[in-house]
Amino acid sequence: MEHVDIIIRNGTVVTMDGERSVFCPGAVAVRGDLIVEVGEEQSVCSVFRGEKEIDARGGIVMPGLINTHTHAAMTCFRGLADDLPLMTWLNDHIFPAESKLSPEMVYQGTLLACAEMILSGTTTFCDMYLFEDSVAEAAKYAGMRALVGEVLYDFPSPNYGLIEKGFEYTEMLLDKWKDDSLVSIAVEPHSPYLCAPDLLQRAMELSDRYSAPLVIHLAETEREVRQTQDKYGFTPVGHLANLDILCPRMIADHCVVLTDEDITLLKRFDVKVAHNPESNMKLASGIAPLPELIRSGITVGLGTDGCASNNNLDLFQEMDSAAKLHKVNTLDPTVMDAKTVVEMATINGARVLGMDRLVGSLEARKKADIIVIDIRKPHLTPMYNVYSHLVYAVTGNDVTTVIIDGRIVTERRILKTLDLEATMNAVNRIANEKLRCFS
Amino acid sequence: MEHVDIIIRNGTVVTMDGERSVFCPGAVAVRGDLIVEVGEEQSVCSVFRGEKEIDARGGIVMPGLINTHTHAAMTCFRGLADDLPLMTWLNDHIFPAESKLSPEMVYQGTLLACAEMILSGTTTFCDMYLFEDSVAEAAKYAGMRALVGEVLYDFPSPNYGLIEKGFEYTEMLLDKWKDDSLVSIAVEPHSPYLCAPDLLQRAMELSDRYSAPLVIHLAETEREVRQTQDKYGFTPVGHLANLDILCPRMIADHCVVLTDEDITLLKRFDVKVAHNPESNMKLASGIAPLPELIRSGITVGLGTDGCASNNNLDLFQEMDSAAKLHKVNTLDPTVMDAKTVVEMATINGARVLGMDRLVGSLEARKKADIIVIDIRKPHLTPMYNVYSHLVYAVTGNDVTTVIIDGRIVTERRILKTLDLEATMNAVNRIANEKLRCFS
Repeated sequence: MEHVDIIIRNGTVVTMDGERSVFCPGAVAVRGDLIVEVGEEQSVCSVFRGEKEIDARGGIVMPGLINTHTHAAMTCFRGLADDLPLMTWLNDHIFPAESKLSPEMVYQGTLLACAEMILSGTTTFCDMYLFEDSVAEAAKYAGMRALVGEVLYDFPSPNYGLIEKGFEYTEMLLDKWKDDSLVSIAVEPHSPYLCAPDLLQRAMELSDRYSAPLVIHLAETEREVRQTQDKYGFTPVGHLANLDILCPRMIADHCVVLTDEDITLLKRFDVKVAHNPESNMKLASGIAPLPELIRSGITVGLGTDGCASNNNLDLFQEMDSAAKLHKVNTLDPTVMDAKTVVEMATINGARVLGMDRLVGSLEARKKADIIVIDIRKPHLTPMYNVYSHLVYAVTGNDVTTVIIDGRIVTERRILKTLDLEATMNAVNRIANEKLRCFS
Repeated sequence: MEHVDIIIRNGTVVTMDGERSVFCPGAVAVRGDLIVEVGEEQSVCSVFRGEKEIDARGGIVMPGLINTHTHAAMTCFRGLADDLPLMTWLNDHIFPAESKLSPEMVYQGTLLACAEMILSGTTTFCDMYLFEDSVAEAAKYAGMRALVGEVLYDFPSPNYGLIEKGFEYTEMLLDKWKDDSLVSIAVEPHSPYLCAPDLLQRAMELSDRYSAPLVIHLAETEREVRQTQDKYGFTPVGHLANLDILCPRMIADHCVVLTDEDITLLKRFDVKVAHNPESNMKLASGIAPLPELIRSGITVGLGTDGCASNNNLDLFQEMDSAAKLHKVNTLDPTVMDAKTVVEMATINGARVLGMDRLVGSLEARKKADIIVIDIRKPHLTPMYNVYSHLVYAVTGNDVTTVIIDGRIVTERRILKTLDLEATMNAVNRIANEKLRCFS
């Protein structure tokens, strides 16, 4: 018998590997930060013995979910102001509240977000916000995998001031975190409407130099498309194509309002898309043409966006919304079938972040980012189809065990990496002392 | 000090009374099956002392939610067949599976549904299915409030055979359950497309004779509207108007595809509407014109529909979907604000079922149907606005205590009225032995 650190057994193992293998009952063996074997329980357990054995109790074992777009620290603003016209929401509530942000608030808000994400089965997230070094520190402390980057735009930032300093701050992040096992850094210009062409091109150069992902909000609303057309004579996607910055390292958030030509461009340059259906619904931005994007072969991941426009970070609920929204929008119940949606939240999310050689599926030699779901619950009884269950019935609360980078960060829903009470108290204090006046 | 059976204190009490009073901290006093006082904690607790004290621990206390449309026993079919064209789904999966139903299967499936509903904060449901005496028995056993009725249609039923017997069965139900504290009976013709005019009119007469609600699926799909127009020359709503059966006791499920004239008719006859956004999304039926219905003054409640088309019975998730779907559909983030959505799931749901003198709000002399929500969780931290929290962040799993008719049916998420393990095992057996072959 070969010894490993962890064996997970007695579950339906949804691998999301190239063949979409499902083993029932299956097992996963983990040594250090890596998966060493995945397969039928009998075959894995006849070779490997685990220092620690995790009994999935007939539940589901799958890759940790990947949140391809969020603003983690916005947990501080959860429900601060809802159901308002977009400009009232931004100008009278969100922007004034954000002007009060500090590294400590971002750190605590991100810790809380990590707690929420881990407890709902997310093991990797991609973040765009202010004071991102604090986001990186919080993710690292919580034990989460994260791709983070400081938001860059034309006007002065509450963090770095003028844009020149924003690029310096981003380079500092790139250098500081370059060898980290969990945190990696992206270059993150906010959007074509808040970033001048020069800023966008400099961001592209920096992303090139470090081979870092380039994260940008793109084509989120009709209003944005109109403004970009008025100013530059092109759609946002067309504008970026003209600037020569569309590329496979680009992660384009939202992509709600697209022309056929936009879709062709996104495909030609292999731009990755982060789809955020609940935020797009709640802010009334519109419905992204997901079936067309996927049919065109564009790689699409799933995101929750920030807590001000969702208002939670549960990717299981996001999967449910994604599957249902596009069915009713196209009046076709066969689009966005459950397996396609699970792909978005796992292996395709990893592709979007450029991490598919590391995570996104349960395969030997990948990082051990694994979650276990308890299905012995009334709302998960009976189970006929595991993908259908994951999308339409499971919620984040059904996740019992979470392993990230080989480390058990949650077991029986107890988060082991941080003091949950202290984190909640800290954010409640921030809300009461600094932010409630903006609600 | 006056003695009562139960006092709930130390919570934000969302009453949903006429003034939408919120008490923070508030308290509720319960004696027997009735609420005797609701108000500021200090004032309630200075007068009443509870035999049992429930500490809401800073959470939310509110009326139990009301599911205005479901087919409870379809928990047995949860995820049996998804993402299929409607006719394939019905003809190759659901109908063949339903032909195998027995009273025992319906009883066990309904028990499971009651467990799921209670544990997610629903205290009252309206059901349409087969073998409804078993549904009534299961609801009673689980301690839930229910309005149930046997589905009536033109073709032979797996329960009663020919329609004549269907009316006899319904009368049997009306007589058997007439004085029950929890169960009441409706007359339930399936829909204009599965019920001939004669059946519909007889159903109306029976409903009249017993002053019982008249429940019907109405205008769920474009296809139904086209068929009804082809056959009768009118929309489904117009057809029912011609038959003279629109009335305030009618509970019309779905109402997705409506003309302006249909809306005028529904309003004129004070027909009640049960809105089921997640089912309408998943089956790709369409998006009901909710903002127009509500603007017209029509009373609308919320429903989950059955587990084959959702696939859970969590009204908190349904509230979230309802709020978001109509925002994106109208491209207006201000429609279906959180308070309006909570009204749908509580007081307006009670009005839909003709039960608003009994339940739907926390007020003295109403039945004690009360739920408590724990907000000391990462995804519910911080809280700025209680309605926003209930709609956009809370899920059914956050419900800790459920009181129905003055009886504590769940405390600290432990269901007290039935053996959950035995119920799940029974439905798993039904799935494996009888239904898996249809998946």
